[in-house]
Amino acid sequence: MASTDPEVAKEAAQSKSPAKSDLPPPLPPATGAVNCSVVDVVLRVLLFSATLVAVIVMVTSEQSKLVPLPQMPTVSVKLPAKFNHSPAFIYFVAALAVACFYSIITTLASIGVILKPAFYTKFLLYFAFLDVLMLGIVASATGAAGGVAYVGLKGNRHVGWVKVCSTYDKFCRYIGTSTALALFAAVLLVLLSMLSTYSLYKRIR
Amino acid sequence: MASTDPEVAKEAAQSKSPAKSDLPPPLPPATGAVNCSVVDVVLRVLLFSATLVAVIVMVTSEQSKLVPLPQMPTVSVKLPAKFNHSPAFIYFVAALAVACFYSIITTLASIGVILKPAFYTKFLLYFAFLDVLMLGIVASATGAAGGVAYVGLKGNRHVGWVKVCSTYDKFCRYIGTSTALALFAAVLLVLLSMLSTYSLYKRIR
Repeated sequence: MASTDPEVAKEAAQSKSPAKSDLPPPLPPATGAVNCSVVDVVLRVLLFSATLVAVIVMVTSEQSKLVPLPQMPTVSVKLPAKFNHSPAFIYFVAALAVACFYSIITTLASIGVILKPAFYTKFLLYFAFLDVLMLGIVASATGAAGGVAYVGLKGNRHVGWVKVCSTYDKFCRYIGTSTALALFAAVLLVLLSMLSTYSLYKRIR
Repeated sequence: MASTDPEVAKEAAQSKSPAKSDLPPPLPPATGAVNCSVVDVVLRVLLFSATLVAVIVMVTSEQSKLVPLPQMPTVSVKLPAKFNHSPAFIYFVAALAVACFYSIITTLASIGVILKPAFYTKFLLYFAFLDVLMLGIVASATGAAGGVAYVGLKGNRHVGWVKVCSTYDKFCRYIGTSTALALFAAVLLVLLSMLSTYSLYKRIR
């Protein structure tokens, strides 16, 4: 933390023209940097949309159906299927909600960097670090939800786990859509991390 | 691809001392870069060990037990539990095997960069890109295996999925160990990606 002030000053000096070094930075460091920042903002807005819709679809996936009791097949009871019946889906919702919140914060930060490019390089590093962390969380949540959803879809005859999707069709469609959106969000995070790294690489003179 | 030659020449020139610009680069660009490369190699060797052991433990998790038939509880049959009974575990083995192979290739590449530092910056970019991709694959495989293993451990009374780990204890221990190792591998990939990005950041003058 002690090295922040000199580095910020150095970056600010880089973004200024040599003739007007006493003025605040009026423009981003280079046109390529602005383009990268704009793409970054667009990807983060997409990430926000994907994670928000994924959370909403997962949370609203509840479906109730008349299911015959195993002990008395002639008697049917109305049983609901909810996302919070499975710990994997609860983790999924928590992880995607964190990613959604993260996308709001970083979209604002990315817009802030376009307006005030003195902190551009430092933010690229932070973005690359945090995007990778968030990717790990979103990818693992996608895997967990996908793994459990697949058991629900196909069952597992080796251990006697029955199919769920043959009964709860709407529930499974929602879970599938939500998992696909989370996969899209994970791909976006891969692209965002690569973009930040590439922008850093491009700044090496 | 057309810009490769001038960039390589520029990087080679950076690593040479100004007085001996006609000689090949005898030393890495800086001591910090060598330290980062050594840490990179160590982390990649750890990644190789973790993924290899995870694959071996998962593949050797087979266990056979006498299980009473549901239709006739007095009759027991010997039933095996194998990793390839679940698509999530098959995906896990495939993903971790790819990560293991990737770790061998990149360890060799990283050692090569220490010996021939002219390509250091370009390799940092490639490593950062590929580590992020591999992290997505390993994290999703860890999530999928963890999600299914948790159902095996706790069951799910809402949909009538029975516990498996109460019967197949050794099988579940192996699956748990393998998933924990994959989680460790995912953390290593996060660190590797961050290290490459940080090394790029440090090269910005």
